[in-house]
Amino acid sequence: MALEQVDAYLEKHRDHFEAQLKDLIRIPSVSAQPDHDPDTQRAATFVRDDLAAIGLKAELISTQRHPLVYAEWLGAPGQPTLLVYGHYDVQPPEPLEPWLSPPFEPTIRDGNLYARGATDDKGQMFTHLKAAQAWLKATGSLPVNVKFLIEGEEEIGGVNLEAYVAEHRDRLACDYAVISDTSQFAPGMPAITYGLKGLAYFEIHVQGANRDLHSGTYGGAVANPLNALATILASLKGADGKIRIEGFYDAVKPLEDWERAEFARMPFSEAEFQADLAVPSLVGEEGYTTLERKWARPTCDVHGLFGGYSGPGPKTVLPCKAGAKLSFRLVPDQDPKTVGELFRAHVRKFTPPGVSVEVITQQGAPAVLVSVDSPGFRAAVRAIEAGFGTKPVFIREGGSIPVVGLLKQHLKVDTLLLGWGQNDDNMHGPNEKFSLADFHRGIKAGAHLLEELANEPA
Amino acid sequence: MALEQVDAYLEKHRDHFEAQLKDLIRIPSVSAQPDHDPDTQRAATFVRDDLAAIGLKAELISTQRHPLVYAEWLGAPGQPTLLVYGHYDVQPPEPLEPWLSPPFEPTIRDGNLYARGATDDKGQMFTHLKAAQAWLKATGSLPVNVKFLIEGEEEIGGVNLEAYVAEHRDRLACDYAVISDTSQFAPGMPAITYGLKGLAYFEIHVQGANRDLHSGTYGGAVANPLNALATILASLKGADGKIRIEGFYDAVKPLEDWERAEFARMPFSEAEFQADLAVPSLVGEEGYTTLERKWARPTCDVHGLFGGYSGPGPKTVLPCKAGAKLSFRLVPDQDPKTVGELFRAHVRKFTPPGVSVEVITQQGAPAVLVSVDSPGFRAAVRAIEAGFGTKPVFIREGGSIPVVGLLKQHLKVDTLLLGWGQNDDNMHGPNEKFSLADFHRGIKAGAHLLEELANEPA
Repeated sequence: MALEQVDAYLEKHRDHFEAQLKDLIRIPSVSAQPDHDPDTQRAATFVRDDLAAIGLKAELISTQRHPLVYAEWLGAPGQPTLLVYGHYDVQPPEPLEPWLSPPFEPTIRDGNLYARGATDDKGQMFTHLKAAQAWLKATGSLPVNVKFLIEGEEEIGGVNLEAYVAEHRDRLACDYAVISDTSQFAPGMPAITYGLKGLAYFEIHVQGANRDLHSGTYGGAVANPLNALATILASLKGADGKIRIEGFYDAVKPLEDWERAEFARMPFSEAEFQADLAVPSLVGEEGYTTLERKWARPTCDVHGLFGGYSGPGPKTVLPCKAGAKLSFRLVPDQDPKTVGELFRAHVRKFTPPGVSVEVITQQGAPAVLVSVDSPGFRAAVRAIEAGFGTKPVFIREGGSIPVVGLLKQHLKVDTLLLGWGQNDDNMHGPNEKFSLADFHRGIKAGAHLLEELANEPA
Repeated sequence: MALEQVDAYLEKHRDHFEAQLKDLIRIPSVSAQPDHDPDTQRAATFVRDDLAAIGLKAELISTQRHPLVYAEWLGAPGQPTLLVYGHYDVQPPEPLEPWLSPPFEPTIRDGNLYARGATDDKGQMFTHLKAAQAWLKATGSLPVNVKFLIEGEEEIGGVNLEAYVAEHRDRLACDYAVISDTSQFAPGMPAITYGLKGLAYFEIHVQGANRDLHSGTYGGAVANPLNALATILASLKGADGKIRIEGFYDAVKPLEDWERAEFARMPFSEAEFQADLAVPSLVGEEGYTTLERKWARPTCDVHGLFGGYSGPGPKTVLPCKAGAKLSFRLVPDQDPKTVGELFRAHVRKFTPPGVSVEVITQQGAPAVLVSVDSPGFRAAVRAIEAGFGTKPVFIREGGSIPVVGLLKQHLKVDTLLLGWGQNDDNMHGPNEKFSLADFHRGIKAGAHLLEELANEPA
């Protein structure tokens, strides 16, 4: 009866929910770029105000960087408590040229909403606000207790969330956590993600001489930091796709047989995957399928290279500095700190003579693997079936959501990773998008999750 | 008698010459950057006007890019003809942060004039204008015939000079060419450069997927063009400092015994060289000294790296494009075209799977080696002794001056490379400088060269 009222409310407010989401997306809350600090503040305020309007007790929590939003509704004594985590910050939109519509002007094409943050994570996060709104507005209460913790430093691996969670275990105490910041397996195949990769992100700086030099006058006699950087980076991976850092694989937990069998059963076409990306061939670690590589094997990717002259025309400079951003995606049970130590030792060993090197850690989070047989999972399966009309598959993900490990560590809860996105949503690239149909399905699944959790003993 | 008048004129006009040079340097004639096209035009006009004011028949010659300046004085029938080459264009000033004074605001510190173009080549080129001026203003004529050819595309390896020289052999016909665009061996040790390295400059573009991707979702399954670029670049040179491109050394002419002996006698301190650059160690090709590496062995330097995200904070993108600028400095008898073919074959061989690569040739010039025993060299030795108070040493140079090969090819003349600069002038880097004392010594040597050439049978 209550659920019917909720479903009716959702149906009636589709346009309004979309308009609200667009307003949120228009705020360019790029957490990595200090120029946008006023925008992250605005986005946080927007989320706080919306939670308050829905009927939760909501507040902004200042940090040394971007504020947290916290809200709660605790009117269901005796019922379990669900903590919803999300983030209102977004990746930098650069490079701008490939965007077909401006990154912060949400534009609908073919039923998809295109904008930075559409799926990661504004659109997905917002579904849980609207689910709570439907219950509170249509029935006056929620079936379970709900807490929202929405941060603004997810894309920069900020430390303020962790500090807050560690210091407020009582306030944040819960039975389940839910995050929608992942993807379905494919359109029409909603998924619950039971494994995530961890991340160890570094910046490496190579210094040669104390000034830029003429490559004719000095070349051949003085180390070139750009050549040296290439040597260091090239040493990280072999032609077999294996990472060559000594000890890197020591803690890696092998894929279990049931997982490899499950992955192999997924309707995944390597040919289509390759054609979609228009790459001459797929590559990766020998002995593993593409899904296994994506989901369950550690990786090493360079994210940015810089140094010297990259303007028009030739410039024959022997630059004094070069640098790169790179990260390792980690799997259970790799520890980001240990990987950092192994990486630094490797860099020391492979740095050519004549330059000095500095390695800066920019982000670190362990991988996550949770049980697929728990009360929360069972509730989530039924909620997704209600929202999407089909049972979810259980998958792993190559992305990293550091907060999952953090909630486990400090609050002792496993997180339900209910992804409403699609793999081709371009989460961190140009033309990021989110299916509006999935937006509404996600809201409905979120609303039903509250009911289903009330039916499961925590 | 005439020479005394010339010397007196030079002495009297020191301040005026410096002021004129500053005016020329203030024009930011960066040939590589189209934004500065009006400035290259202005610099060309400045040089043309000054040559006309001195008393030469001077004109601007339009090209498809930056204009040439040509001027002549042919009032010494029966006497040899000297062609002065120089360039009014300059390297980009970037990076701007390390400059202690603005790159296009000439500033004197410790007797040095600091500015982009101070030594390369505005300051050095200008000495020959002032030498001619002294003769014409003080005595009404020059001892030999003189032609000036000053271009604006030296720093971008422009093709317009070559086209002009090839089509105007009669007009440019001469007995000697002189260029001041090199360095002394050390302060107080003026040098004539008898060998120059050639250059083969390339840009390499690596393409992965058709769009930027999330490194978590796609990493490990799709080739990363930044990692691939590092692999390609790292393959170019071995730990022994040898370039690993097959066939690269085939055409390399070994250093002669007298040269190695001569170089070894130069007062060159590897320890001081290292200390000046503040590098942890000197590096280079095994089996050669630093001077041999700098002057007479081929090299490979990366000039710029680009691709992915290099802004603040971590961004977990798997970029779809990466690129680099790099060049090989060549020695006799390497051919830039052949080197280009060998390089392309090497890149094809070492490109990892999953990406496509494009190599673009941006500049090419062969190395130069001329006889140290010729009438022009003898005249130059005496002229430098007059200007600098000491005999020059004979050296080779790691830099490339493509026009030297071009003048040889089309006009059949060897070039006198009379360098007034210093090795630490930061020709292509921030805080480029030129000693004002050497500026005036160079003018005097240039003026005496005109007299000495009249005394040597061509």
